[in-house]
Amino acid sequence: MTKIKMIIEYDGSHYHGYQKQANAAPTIQAELEDGIQSLTGLKVKLTSAGRTDAGVHALGQVITFTSPASIPPDRWAAALNSVLPGDIRVLESKQVPVDFHPRFDAISKHYRYLIYRGQRGRIFLRRYACIHDGVLDLSLMQEACSLIQGQHNFKAFCSSGSSVKSFERTVYRCSLTEKKDLLYMDIEANGFLYNMVRIIMGSLLEIGSGRMDIGDIEQAFTTGIRDHLGPTAPPQGLYLMGVDYGSRSD
Amino acid sequence: MTKIKMIIEYDGSHYHGYQKQANAAPTIQAELEDGIQSLTGLKVKLTSAGRTDAGVHALGQVITFTSPASIPPDRWAAALNSVLPGDIRVLESKQVPVDFHPRFDAISKHYRYLIYRGQRGRIFLRRYACIHDGVLDLSLMQEACSLIQGQHNFKAFCSSGSSVKSFERTVYRCSLTEKKDLLYMDIEANGFLYNMVRIIMGSLLEIGSGRMDIGDIEQAFTTGIRDHLGPTAPPQGLYLMGVDYGSRSD
Repeated sequence: MTKIKMIIEYDGSHYHGYQKQANAAPTIQAELEDGIQSLTGLKVKLTSAGRTDAGVHALGQVITFTSPASIPPDRWAAALNSVLPGDIRVLESKQVPVDFHPRFDAISKHYRYLIYRGQRGRIFLRRYACIHDGVLDLSLMQEACSLIQGQHNFKAFCSSGSSVKSFERTVYRCSLTEKKDLLYMDIEANGFLYNMVRIIMGSLLEIGSGRMDIGDIEQAFTTGIRDHLGPTAPPQGLYLMGVDYGSRSD
Repeated sequence: MTKIKMIIEYDGSHYHGYQKQANAAPTIQAELEDGIQSLTGLKVKLTSAGRTDAGVHALGQVITFTSPASIPPDRWAAALNSVLPGDIRVLESKQVPVDFHPRFDAISKHYRYLIYRGQRGRIFLRRYACIHDGVLDLSLMQEACSLIQGQHNFKAFCSSGSSVKSFERTVYRCSLTEKKDLLYMDIEANGFLYNMVRIIMGSLLEIGSGRMDIGDIEQAFTTGIRDHLGPTAPPQGLYLMGVDYGSRSD
């Protein structure tokens, strides 16, 4: 048995998220598992670096599986791409040690959230960015980003339905970049709670619009209460950019 | 009766081109006419600056129609956007003289053809650019662009099935721009023959790949024979950027 690690990109627009569901709803995981099975004739179960919700995209999702197939590790990418739909693509495949785990061995994950503020061409970005009208105070938003950085209790930044035990996470980077009509937030952390990036983004937009104070962020860290924060930003602006394993998967 | 001119953008991915068809196939024109009818209760027939094929996009298509409706000219955009699907959008609406014609009064039209040469993220561009692998000699392609400029007989650059009388067109600008993994051609002319931009682009790619000589372009101008040129580049890279009317529609 060989353990294969793959880096995957996908357009999440037409999927019910990454994770396979009990019903027959199309998911990224189901497409990948079906694709691998069509190549080898064997059922397979994938492990991923993390789930993404319906409409959320990935440029660097990481998955692993074990297979007795004789396909050389680096050829899995091309083989699987030949049977995958056009909105899912394997960027790279290689062999990893059998004890490698794409979630537990991750040092950090990187998400980007994309906002489009222009008028022209917004129909082309309707599935790939959050369209935003109105003035934003970017320096206030940047100040809020620097408050997000560091080790905090992110309980308030978590949608209910999560079953985690600890809400402590360390954000290594949270930055906002403006490029013409695009605005994007990059966030890297040792882990993310459910909807954490989208709640941070929703709160930054509230701060930028003057509907929320920077102090509310600190308040949310202290109290853990979701009500202090902005709404959950829509899924289509969110991209899982990549996962860092240090030297673990080299 | 008021004559209204609108600037429209659309994502052509899911349409059988701009022009309404006898069958019920979805087209941009049909969506716009249905939308206007749903606002006013009256049937309407649009005139456009030009047709675009299935899969071709627009950032600046121009259409006109006359209506007895009391909607103020500049409010048509918002009114129609409220009933249009998400992949068609009116950017601007205004009143024009009753004898204004979006095709006959055009001084020039501007098309852009987009090529993506990167590996990462290509799934997001599969409907919005031509994905190209392999080395391209950009300076040769740029030399070919400058040959395209000027007044020529473009008969060879025209797909069959066209019923035009003259194949003479003047290309005011044909330029190639490289921006990271993107490559795009801008072309402005006083008129375009059927598939002319896509045949020019297909020929430029052949020249850049070393499969066609620059001299073949001049040969094609002289002989009018399609065989001298490259294949018709795929539709999804093509955008109708805008139409210039000089002061005619101000």
